[in-house]
Amino acid sequence: MQASIQVSQAPAVQYLLRIGDTALILAQRLAEWSGHAPVLEEDIALSNMALDLVGQARAVLTHAGQLEGSGYDEDQLAFLRDERDYRNVTLVELPRGDFAVTVLRNAMVATFFKLLWTQLATSSDAELAGIAGKAVKEARYHQQHAADWLVRLADGTDESRRRVEKAVMQLWHYNTELFADDAVDEHAHATGLGPRWGDLKEAWTAEMTELFAAGGLTVPAEVAFLATGKRGTHSEHMGFLLAEMQHLQRAFPGGVW
Amino acid sequence: MQASIQVSQAPAVQYLLRIGDTALILAQRLAEWSGHAPVLEEDIALSNMALDLVGQARAVLTHAGQLEGSGYDEDQLAFLRDERDYRNVTLVELPRGDFAVTVLRNAMVATFFKLLWTQLATSSDAELAGIAGKAVKEARYHQQHAADWLVRLADGTDESRRRVEKAVMQLWHYNTELFADDAVDEHAHATGLGPRWGDLKEAWTAEMTELFAAGGLTVPAEVAFLATGKRGTHSEHMGFLLAEMQHLQRAFPGGVW
Repeated sequence: MQASIQVSQAPAVQYLLRIGDTALILAQRLAEWSGHAPVLEEDIALSNMALDLVGQARAVLTHAGQLEGSGYDEDQLAFLRDERDYRNVTLVELPRGDFAVTVLRNAMVATFFKLLWTQLATSSDAELAGIAGKAVKEARYHQQHAADWLVRLADGTDESRRRVEKAVMQLWHYNTELFADDAVDEHAHATGLGPRWGDLKEAWTAEMTELFAAGGLTVPAEVAFLATGKRGTHSEHMGFLLAEMQHLQRAFPGGVW
Repeated sequence: MQASIQVSQAPAVQYLLRIGDTALILAQRLAEWSGHAPVLEEDIALSNMALDLVGQARAVLTHAGQLEGSGYDEDQLAFLRDERDYRNVTLVELPRGDFAVTVLRNAMVATFFKLLWTQLATSSDAELAGIAGKAVKEARYHQQHAADWLVRLADGTDESRRRVEKAVMQLWHYNTELFADDAVDEHAHATGLGPRWGDLKEAWTAEMTELFAAGGLTVPAEVAFLATGKRGTHSEHMGFLLAEMQHLQRAFPGGVW
């Protein structure tokens, strides 16, 4: 077994890991639909989204490795960290659930990413700005696709509406973590690397409220719940996801098996 | 549970099902690598190949449904047939194996598809010719990608070479089925729908021999073994693959769950 790597706690590195890991882990959950989507067309759409997200993760992790300074490449960062060193928000590591859960989560995350990449396109870090310029187009498409499905399911049969409402109950409160700022956000803001994620909350809430209105859905009231994935404390699902994702790389370090 | 559909035995329909099913089932096996490839770059490449193949399968099955005349769409054909009504060659339903098995199978199938689509681009069936015009470009890329990896593994470490040689022992003899002509091929040939697959054998063998030579690999001598997938008699692996692939569609007919 390959040993784990230890990554710098420097705030710029942590800021990038939060972005790269959130994209990587959501890609992992979307890839679970491969060959299992309800129709071939949707199988292709979800797989394409997963591919876009892996591409974004790869670019951001490569850059994180450069900033980090120990010479880690994107594969080492993707596959050789311990669970507590992954910085994705908890929302994306939750099980894929049914199609309603997948669609709602995609809508929440894509709306967030669209807003984030838009800001990052003017980052003081030219490399990150370049990645963002491409990624924002992908996020915009992901958001549109998820929004269309969400309204379609909310306006569909009794069963599809019931499932969407259940998904809202299940996922909504995980959004709070996205906007809970800390020293990593303040550093990014101060250096021009990127926005405090909390500064995106108002626009995100407005877009989600509009989308929910289009589907006749009610936005839940805020509750006192704060997930902690981006600080490295993950849900019970994360270990299983990583075991599956890391197995080959750990067993055959640097190899192709 | 949704009941199975029964599909016409008309030779033109069967000819198309052999193509569409071979692409569909290989896509299924390639999708199993999603999130499990040795490096992120290869994860993306294999997923992209799977997507190309699903796209080809979808186009061909849609057209098969039109010719068939009972009004089946591509999703019904992909998901609601019984095992014995799938017409893919046995080669593509074998378990994904290790990376060497995946690479060799991709090389064998992509070389075949490249030759087939090239001929189909001048099919008397304009719709099929159109599909082939796009697909041949994808197959050419798949072939090149697999060929590069095959040589790299064959020329790599002792372990990688050992694995490639084992993959050759395991997969090679399944090629015979691709070129075993029957009434379906004769009908396609006579009507200009497409070539007898057996007519592609010489070119396929020449390309594979050249590739094996580049990797210093020996082409096995022919043996008396003929797989029978394209006539509907599948290996013991097919049932498990279909159970996995059909589960959602059968449980929630026409739905999105």
